[in-house]
Amino acid sequence: MSTTAPLRAVKRAFNFNAGPAALPLPVLERIREELLDYRGTGMSVMELSHRSAEFEAINNAAEQNLRRLLAIPEEYAVIFVQGGGSMQFTMAPMNLCLPGKPVDVLHTGMWTAKAIGELKKGVLHNIAASTEAEKFARLPRREEIKLSPDASYTYICSNNTIEGTQYTELPASAAPLVADMSSDIASRPMDVSKFGLIFAGAQKNLGPSGVTVVIVRKDLAERADKNLPSLLQYRTHIKEKSLYHTPPTFAVYVLSLVTEWIAGEGGLAGMQKRNEAKAKLLYHTIEDSNGFYRCPVEKSSRSLMNVVFRVAGGDEAVEKQFAKDATAASLIGTPGHRSVGGMRISLYNAVGLDAVEALTGFMREFQRTRA
Amino acid sequence: MSTTAPLRAVKRAFNFNAGPAALPLPVLERIREELLDYRGTGMSVMELSHRSAEFEAINNAAEQNLRRLLAIPEEYAVIFVQGGGSMQFTMAPMNLCLPGKPVDVLHTGMWTAKAIGELKKGVLHNIAASTEAEKFARLPRREEIKLSPDASYTYICSNNTIEGTQYTELPASAAPLVADMSSDIASRPMDVSKFGLIFAGAQKNLGPSGVTVVIVRKDLAERADKNLPSLLQYRTHIKEKSLYHTPPTFAVYVLSLVTEWIAGEGGLAGMQKRNEAKAKLLYHTIEDSNGFYRCPVEKSSRSLMNVVFRVAGGDEAVEKQFAKDATAASLIGTPGHRSVGGMRISLYNAVGLDAVEALTGFMREFQRTRA
Repeated sequence: MSTTAPLRAVKRAFNFNAGPAALPLPVLERIREELLDYRGTGMSVMELSHRSAEFEAINNAAEQNLRRLLAIPEEYAVIFVQGGGSMQFTMAPMNLCLPGKPVDVLHTGMWTAKAIGELKKGVLHNIAASTEAEKFARLPRREEIKLSPDASYTYICSNNTIEGTQYTELPASAAPLVADMSSDIASRPMDVSKFGLIFAGAQKNLGPSGVTVVIVRKDLAERADKNLPSLLQYRTHIKEKSLYHTPPTFAVYVLSLVTEWIAGEGGLAGMQKRNEAKAKLLYHTIEDSNGFYRCPVEKSSRSLMNVVFRVAGGDEAVEKQFAKDATAASLIGTPGHRSVGGMRISLYNAVGLDAVEALTGFMREFQRTRA
Repeated sequence: MSTTAPLRAVKRAFNFNAGPAALPLPVLERIREELLDYRGTGMSVMELSHRSAEFEAINNAAEQNLRRLLAIPEEYAVIFVQGGGSMQFTMAPMNLCLPGKPVDVLHTGMWTAKAIGELKKGVLHNIAASTEAEKFARLPRREEIKLSPDASYTYICSNNTIEGTQYTELPASAAPLVADMSSDIASRPMDVSKFGLIFAGAQKNLGPSGVTVVIVRKDLAERADKNLPSLLQYRTHIKEKSLYHTPPTFAVYVLSLVTEWIAGEGGLAGMQKRNEAKAKLLYHTIEDSNGFYRCPVEKSSRSLMNVVFRVAGGDEAVEKQFAKDATAASLIGTPGHRSVGGMRISLYNAVGLDAVEALTGFMREFQRTRA
């Protein structure tokens, strides 16, 4: 029962996918190295019992890594659940709504629209601000936000992947702030104590798809009716340390490795530096193109994670060619979301500056051959 | 960006875990081979967009492999969701209950107890049979089952992992039969047309944890209130071919490989032959031990998937030693569920006859040194 297989050399692409997205190469190499035998167990991580000491250690490492990286205060629970952000659109109101007290929503794009779609199924809510009239090309200004006096919570999407916007300053809110942080969690230092609940699908900055990180103030998790389905109550997962039922063990394992990698790269301050350098280079290339490339997003709202731009005044044929030529140059995932068109470059933690250098070199060359 | 790392030789354990459980070695080797570069894409499967042609092909292959293996009729949808069997304890009644019409449940162990626990939160239901008085050491007899005249559906757990029981004959039911088939799906040929809904966490016979297979008659999925959370409606996933939101892409990929492996091993008839041979050898070893090993399950109800037994009249110190010595002999996962004690050997598809031969050899030797 011994096995070694020779592995071929591989050529890696530059991956700008919006999620699932690039993972750090050292993490992938580690996964490969221990895929058939997790640290002398004679089993793959996927074959370990979720009740084994080995998996318990992985589960704890994933939680503790996140606690250290994000400096999560003791009064917050960190749990791993399934269903992605979409499930949280249902779980957040189910667990956190108080009778007669609305959810205040800052509407900033397609992902808040999805959350609102679920609230519309019977949850009292209030659109406290919306930039839909400006096609979500910026985030709401402080003076535009009309919060309720008695909200259950205030809801935001901290980074809007499709529209390319990201909060730098959080809205002031007396009610607990709930954030869909799927696309910028762990990309920069942040103050968890400003939030009541943070959730994030792992598949952008933290790991593969299939596991969702929930950081919730423990007292808020106690708001939930105990008659809710067990799996849809945060308290169930808090109590059982994410082991109430069989967790997505492999995804949690990869998350533990990615968070370990982040720590080794300087933690969130290191990520911020890295992410700012990448975004700066790309936005600069856009600004420096004499209008051939154009970012529709107002400068103060621009995302470090997802850079959206149009090519040649939004000429769809040229944009299609851009994506095609980029793919041929091993620059993957450049088209914008199908709902808005244009280009979108996702610059999550695992995307290297070398990838952005390759991309911006390609952009200059693409422009040169068209101009 | 080229990378090759030398891999060390690995020694594989004999894995009798109850789930997550053993995976076929050729599948693990294939995963390892393409981990850094999925078929020339320059990306890991985990890094592919779920909207890419490559992942769409994986998603389709997973579905089509299951359709072929299980001979699933056209009027059934096959979808991949998150949350495991536990989420289905909520989704099944949410989607399939008709007003005023109860769920008939055949109560056969801890997993039906969990399902009943969720029904107790406001779903009309009827315990149509229970073998709790016999400590679930057998399944209900035909004449014991008292079905309602107007049930929304009849609920069973086809294989009870903890108690070691498995249906060979399905209960007759005019109402649609709904089965938690988590621990014996794809382990033997079965007639899908006898069911209204089948669900199964993949982590026993089909892949890793983190993805749940749901096979549902399309007309039944239309019973659901459209005001339910989108993610909790089967129809959402049916309509979007399991791509309504980001799926657990890696888990679906592994499932596609495992189902391909099953097909190559003779399909479900091949699995049945394999599984019967393993179970026969193990039950024979138990029966042949002059009572040193004893299976508490009535013969007609014994499972091919999970073989439970006591050692030395249920002497817990001896059973603990058994598990300890087994682990030392690379026989992993022999203790019974913590709620019942004793031993439990899980013989899912990927467990080889060689593993059972090693185990039964160990059992005879363990008995010899104690007798």
